[in-house]
Amino acid sequence: MATIFSKIVAGEIPSYKVAEDDKFYAFLDINPLVKGHTLVVPKKEVDYIYDLSDEELAAMHVFAKHVALAIQKAFPCRKVGEAVIGLEVPHAHIHLIPIQNESDMLFSNPKLKLSDEEFKSIEERIHNAWEGKA
Amino acid sequence: MATIFSKIVAGEIPSYKVAEDDKFYAFLDINPLVKGHTLVVPKKEVDYIYDLSDEELAAMHVFAKHVALAIQKAFPCRKVGEAVIGLEVPHAHIHLIPIQNESDMLFSNPKLKLSDEEFKSIEERIHNAWEGKA
Repeated sequence: MATIFSKIVAGEIPSYKVAEDDKFYAFLDINPLVKGHTLVVPKKEVDYIYDLSDEELAAMHVFAKHVALAIQKAFPCRKVGEAVIGLEVPHAHIHLIPIQNESDMLFSNPKLKLSDEEFKSIEERIHNAWEGKA
Repeated sequence: MATIFSKIVAGEIPSYKVAEDDKFYAFLDINPLVKGHTLVVPKKEVDYIYDLSDEELAAMHVFAKHVALAIQKAFPCRKVGEAVIGLEVPHAHIHLIPIQNESDMLFSNPKLKLSDEEFKSIEERIHNAWEGKA
């Protein structure tokens, strides 16, 4: 059965897409720790990130780096942190989180509740930075 | 001034080394969240991980993947999680953390206090797995 992330990549479930290429897809986490919290997934359905080949894993992280730099342009921060946990959804994903403090990365923090309008505005800012328009 | 991690790589500060190649170095975090918690650093001194070139970043993550698989062999777990935060030490590093639950990744958790003997035993188990001896 397709994972929820495969359905998002296929457009069967809507998402706030910030970047995409032929192999990877980046979209806003709808339970964000901070504004700009983004997920990067491979279009290929793989549960464990280390089941990607070395080449695929390398390409995924290079894609994620450029998404992270777009996030940082759109949402100035000290750094963009990364987390790979992978126990919630069986489809490999990298969390990209713009942080001002180490504690911004704590997944035990309460998640932000944002309106559709706010998500769309965040999506647009990061997507524009990704496209080199910001 | 050399970072603490550069001093570790140079052997000026001792570490529990689990893996090394010409460009990267992996050693046990001495304030581990769980047994097997490992740090991967580039030998080249770079603060922000995204200041590595795409090629260097890709190589670092491929190295980290193989260290993670050695950790998992030595310390059976559901997955090895990754975190990049980077606000504590100005030298890019990836945390590799063998996890049974999502909460094992919480950096707010109390750190384990291990003896030198325990660290050496963990180092040996992961290093042997890295060397293909386990």
